[in-house]
Amino acid sequence: MINGTRLTKSAIRWGMVGGGKGSQIGYVHRSAALRDGYFDLKAGAFDLDPDRGRAFGVDLGLDPDRCYPDYGAMFAAESARPDGIRCVTVATPNNTHYPITRAALLAGLHVICEKPLTFTTAEALDLQAIAAERGLVVGVTYGYSGHQMIEEAARLVADGTLGEIRIVNLQFAHGFHSQAVEGDSPATRWRVDPAFAGPSYVLGDLATHPLYIAGVICPDLRIKRLLCSRQSFVASRAPLEDNATVLMEYDTGAVGTCWTSAVNAGAMHSQKVRVVGSKGSIEWWDEHPNQLRLEIQGEPARLLDRGMPYLHPQALADDRIGAGHPEGLFDAWANLHYRFALAIEAHEDRDPSGVAGLRYPGIAAGVEGVRWVEHCVRSADAGGVWVDYA
Amino acid sequence: MINGTRLTKSAIRWGMVGGGKGSQIGYVHRSAALRDGYFDLKAGAFDLDPDRGRAFGVDLGLDPDRCYPDYGAMFAAESARPDGIRCVTVATPNNTHYPITRAALLAGLHVICEKPLTFTTAEALDLQAIAAERGLVVGVTYGYSGHQMIEEAARLVADGTLGEIRIVNLQFAHGFHSQAVEGDSPATRWRVDPAFAGPSYVLGDLATHPLYIAGVICPDLRIKRLLCSRQSFVASRAPLEDNATVLMEYDTGAVGTCWTSAVNAGAMHSQKVRVVGSKGSIEWWDEHPNQLRLEIQGEPARLLDRGMPYLHPQALADDRIGAGHPEGLFDAWANLHYRFALAIEAHEDRDPSGVAGLRYPGIAAGVEGVRWVEHCVRSADAGGVWVDYA
Amino acid sequence: MINGTRLTKSAIRWGMVGGGKGSQIGYVHRSAALRDGYFDLKAGAFDLDPDRGRAFGVDLGLDPDRCYPDYGAMFAAESARPDGIRCVTVATPNNTHYPITRAALLAGLHVICEKPLTFTTAEALDLQAIAAERGLVVGVTYGYSGHQMIEEAARLVADGTLGEIRIVNLQFAHGFHSQAVEGDSPATRWRVDPAFAGPSYVLGDLATHPLYIAGVICPDLRIKRLLCSRQSFVASRAPLEDNATVLMEYDTGAVGTCWTSAVNAGAMHSQKVRVVGSKGSIEWWDEHPNQLRLEIQGEPARLLDRGMPYLHPQALADDRIGAGHPEGLFDAWANLHYRFALAIEAHEDRDPSGVAGLRYPGIAAGVEGVRWVEHCVRSADAGGVWVDYA
Amino acid sequence: MINGTRLTKSAIRWGMVGGGKGSQIGYVHRSAALRDGYFDLKAGAFDLDPDRGRAFGVDLGLDPDRCYPDYGAMFAAESARPDGIRCVTVATPNNTHYPITRAALLAGLHVICEKPLTFTTAEALDLQAIAAERGLVVGVTYGYSGHQMIEEAARLVADGTLGEIRIVNLQFAHGFHSQAVEGDSPATRWRVDPAFAGPSYVLGDLATHPLYIAGVICPDLRIKRLLCSRQSFVASRAPLEDNATVLMEYDTGAVGTCWTSAVNAGAMHSQKVRVVGSKGSIEWWDEHPNQLRLEIQGEPARLLDRGMPYLHPQALADDRIGAGHPEGLFDAWANLHYRFALAIEAHEDRDPSGVAGLRYPGIAAGVEGVRWVEHCVRSADAGGVWVDYA
Repeated sequence: MINGTRLTKSAIRWGMVGGGKGSQIGYVHRSAALRDGYFDLKAGAFDLDPDRGRAFGVDLGLDPDRCYPDYGAMFAAESARPDGIRCVTVATPNNTHYPITRAALLAGLHVICEKPLTFTTAEALDLQAIAAERGLVVGVTYGYSGHQMIEEAARLVADGTLGEIRIVNLQFAHGFHSQAVEGDSPATRWRVDPAFAGPSYVLGDLATHPLYIAGVICPDLRIKRLLCSRQSFVASRAPLEDNATVLMEYDTGAVGTCWTSAVNAGAMHSQKVRVVGSKGSIEWWDEHPNQLRLEIQGEPARLLDRGMPYLHPQALADDRIGAGHPEGLFDAWANLHYRFALAIEAHEDRDPSGVAGLRYPGIAAGVEGVRWVEHCVRSADAGGVWVDYA
Repeated sequence: MINGTRLTKSAIRWGMVGGGKGSQIGYVHRSAALRDGYFDLKAGAFDLDPDRGRAFGVDLGLDPDRCYPDYGAMFAAESARPDGIRCVTVATPNNTHYPITRAALLAGLHVICEKPLTFTTAEALDLQAIAAERGLVVGVTYGYSGHQMIEEAARLVADGTLGEIRIVNLQFAHGFHSQAVEGDSPATRWRVDPAFAGPSYVLGDLATHPLYIAGVICPDLRIKRLLCSRQSFVASRAPLEDNATVLMEYDTGAVGTCWTSAVNAGAMHSQKVRVVGSKGSIEWWDEHPNQLRLEIQGEPARLLDRGMPYLHPQALADDRIGAGHPEGLFDAWANLHYRFALAIEAHEDRDPSGVAGLRYPGIAAGVEGVRWVEHCVRSADAGGVWVDYA
Repeated sequence: MINGTRLTKSAIRWGMVGGGKGSQIGYVHRSAALRDGYFDLKAGAFDLDPDRGRAFGVDLGLDPDRCYPDYGAMFAAESARPDGIRCVTVATPNNTHYPITRAALLAGLHVICEKPLTFTTAEALDLQAIAAERGLVVGVTYGYSGHQMIEEAARLVADGTLGEIRIVNLQFAHGFHSQAVEGDSPATRWRVDPAFAGPSYVLGDLATHPLYIAGVICPDLRIKRLLCSRQSFVASRAPLEDNATVLMEYDTGAVGTCWTSAVNAGAMHSQKVRVVGSKGSIEWWDEHPNQLRLEIQGEPARLLDRGMPYLHPQALADDRIGAGHPEGLFDAWANLHYRFALAIEAHEDRDPSGVAGLRYPGIAAGVEGVRWVEHCVRSADAGGVWVDYA
Repeated sequence: MINGTRLTKSAIRWGMVGGGKGSQIGYVHRSAALRDGYFDLKAGAFDLDPDRGRAFGVDLGLDPDRCYPDYGAMFAAESARPDGIRCVTVATPNNTHYPITRAALLAGLHVICEKPLTFTTAEALDLQAIAAERGLVVGVTYGYSGHQMIEEAARLVADGTLGEIRIVNLQFAHGFHSQAVEGDSPATRWRVDPAFAGPSYVLGDLATHPLYIAGVICPDLRIKRLLCSRQSFVASRAPLEDNATVLMEYDTGAVGTCWTSAVNAGAMHSQKVRVVGSKGSIEWWDEHPNQLRLEIQGEPARLLDRGMPYLHPQALADDRIGAGHPEGLFDAWANLHYRFALAIEAHEDRDPSGVAGLRYPGIAAGVEGVRWVEHCVRSADAGGVWVDYA
């Protein structure tokens, strides 16, 4: 049960790159990091416009001197201060994730970064190597994975309730971009521009979320090969896809599918994860994240609810409020952030093994997302052929 | 509104092959055909065991002389009678559909046949040619298509409510055969034996249902190529699959997917059809067939209910009871059968154009189902490659 | 499993009063009675207009001589025939139920009657006495009770799964008459006219359905006192109510509520029955009658599905088709009718005890519905006061 | 859109009474108040045990000198400081709400108090008089009302979408206390002890929530009379009820019902509000608070989703994250608290009219809840009779 008592020794001095005035995701990051005092916002390079960035930071209560015109200046100045930030969050468009994260790591900072971590697997592996060498944490904000029922799903698989896993069906298919709304929406525009978004739109922006969750739930499955078909139903988005389907074969003989779309007209999120085993299945839907459906063949379907004593203890650990009360996206993100904080402290204490059982999307998850998108794009661009996964 | 008043001039004298003692599907056929007096059961070759078949027929009130030991005897005797049957229903295992239907057509009988119509497209085309030449109807029991909301879905597509169709997602994935239950269940055993079932299990047995419905809803889509991946999770079923995924590309640029399974553990039917257009989507689920979900992008999702005046008139035509009351599978099958009867009468009157607008699964639907399965199997057996659809 | 094999020795020769041209409920009665050959329609007084009634009967295939101008003529003629009808269904407006049923019983006929059986308890008891004296069956068409999950609910209560019953919440509250649609709808008009409908509208027309179901599920509860508040939101309907709420106290200390309405705007049926015990609850909803929700305190909610082997054997007895396939209202009504037939045969054989365990809404249920409405009206008309139930 | 930018001029210096170690509700209060910097926790009397209270406060980062042994000491000391707290939250058992709130008001503090505000209407009116005289805000934590779809519901009623309101159906009926769990649960024990809980259990603890929401949605309805029936199914709880039903008549001719229970075995929350008008209905359920069901008679039911542009602007004002993402209880509580802060600032500025349109549960809502419970108890204890509402 989370009750506001901080589990780390101290609040982590923290800064942000991006996430300034008008940024919705910046607010989500701050809400999650500041919850329960795990992080303490001390510095920021919030905006490409330095004045606007400084004004924004001051409004948040920062020292004006620690509101920087750009991330380079921030990393230089903060690493020179004895009370400088220990961690930075990168909440900028995709194309900047790699250079900013790299610079932060080289400046000795832990990093919390939006996905996708980079455009290429090579870049992601470069970050992984730097982080490993310097003992730094890179947290990737697969925020949905902070919902407690994901933990329950993982435990049901781990304890054999479902039997041998056979099928993984993933979906994240909304309809908000059924038309070329990017004409009027700057927040959408960069997502469909390869210069800013990278090699994919919905595969990277949406599909990697349920992909990461599937990895949490089924840690033993390794993709052997995959095939992707992608479309740009709003033609001006080509080569970036607004719809894609991926088939996966795992090394155990299990199979998977993933449908991701921004043109699933009329749908809200439709992020769903269904895992089918030889004995039963689980299904989770992010629009009603406090429930998990458990279906054992030959038994009535069961609706599991967050916070109930029948859940595995690990699925109860992050409750903030009793069963029946809904928790939402902000709570899930906050769950990620306290784990990031625990990991950071353990790394600073040179005792990462102390958080060995801690489940959070770290650098390996970041690398995996990039690698998966890369394979999908390669398959799709070759006409929808099977590509071996390596 | 269907109210028990028969729309044909007379009840059609009718016989059955198979569907005898212990057959569930035989009961479904009789319930549907006899509803409202469209068909009049006069003869049968109900069982491989002639005595048991005769006893069964007599129990149903048939003249013992018209309870035949086999279909050959029945077709010969009945076609010699002035009051002989005009139509026969074939409710036998898959491997016999082709020879029995062929013999019936050659004996001048209209046929109602279980799917799949045949094992090969060549055989199906042979039946189509014979039926066309003789002016006979072949009805194929894609029973779910008789639900009224399918008609509403078709009208919503036809009137442009959804915009241009982009995506068709099909699913029929139950979990009843997650284990090798065929060891104890004769009704399941033949379905996983290629000698009786043909080249596929779930693709033919399950997936062709939503495939046909998709064709009703989106009559303008033509498959250009497809790719199928199939698995035998219960290994003893190989080469027949108990799980498969199909990707389809249509000539309009639309795409489709189909997931079919008998090992979706814990699921009941999970037959779902979702059609996504540029403006909105519809979704139908066979377990709650009286509802249709309509989602227009930017508007609240709407739940349409059978029988309501806001539906298209054609979707109201087959109501048997007011809105709010659920209709079920038997009612849907009965809807198919009265259309079969209307088609038969029109053909006998040599006026098939008189029922030109009548929607029912005829020989073309039968051929299409066989052709689709054939392509799926070819793709899957080549390793899951794209095959052109012809 | 119902498979079309009749369980009675013979089909019951059967007639109808009312239910002629344009009658929806007449079609429902015929569909249910003729299903599987339990009844054989031989005579009718279908219409107040004799010619129209005769034409209707002839269209149904009846002997013109057995299409009667009125029920009196029918009962007289049929009881004089050696092959006369044995049972008659009364599908006329409420005000005629009592005289017609009485006349039928006096003519020695078993009766199947629409509810409410009569306007007053005294009349209902009169019918009960006559039926008892003559050994005749009176079946009352509480059709929803034929759904199989009602049987499962009853078994879950009987075997103690829910613990001691504490609360019964009933609801049948649609919105179709939110406005004064009776101006344009003759089928609605008589229902809101006391001369034809009796002392109540929704209490008798709707609420007695879940009331009967509650009695099936909780046979041990006896109402001790009740209180009713009723409203005529469409003022022209007064004194008949289009909305009412009833509070009930049972002799065990359990309590109940019932909300019934025809002005629950936008709702379809909303017929729901929830039974709460000390350990758990069940909830059933007639719009999705193939499911039953079982909630045991401290365990995940369970969704039970019709046809599944985990159900009580008695809840499986009336399946007509495998699990996953929806059955509907017509199937539920047919289930009632085969039980009526079994009861009739047992009574004719002077062995009513032979069907002692047979669950069907008989004369006692008919009496109880009338008595309950009478008490509700008395309470409401006194200003919504508690009235003792006797 | 809420984005972390504080709308008040300053953070409000704030203290707490109760809500210390082990208190779940204390954490909810702090999470809500501290979100986005509206309140700044400066003092507390967290615990009956002064040492434990001080340790708890210090852990939260408070000055040890401002961790007080009791509320009297806190109010005295803080009101003497130039930088003393301006507002205090009362998160203690029910019996202490009145004296603490009274003392706080007399010390010149704004108050945020758990419901019920007091045990009697006289006490509540006393607080109202003091608050009015001194220009102080009393906020009552009807937290569910902070969900945005409540605002949408209110707007749909206000703009006439539903027509004239006829029926209000309220429900808050969980099953967590189906057994006498208070034996093992101190948090439950005081709630069923009249000395601590006051004259009611579920009426005050649960039912006042949907009652307040109904008032927000239907501000024009005034209760004319009501009737309550209450039970103690766990007998040791008597005279406090664990189940109750209330009938209400409004001065417009509309009627209402409320079912509240702690023994609705197997149910999670089941807090539902349904408002029925002459044209349509709305229904909201607190377990899925981001949705609102809108049913217009004769049209398909609509599912409205939080954050969508089709909502009324006022229902979009409090979004923290885009549509599709679920918000939860903590977000709803935070919404209440920023409104409390706005109200407090306006009162301190002696310009309450500046927040005239601001919707929050203030002292009037607190009085109304107490008054309603008082009437319910009086009705129930008289045997379930109608009592005039005054």
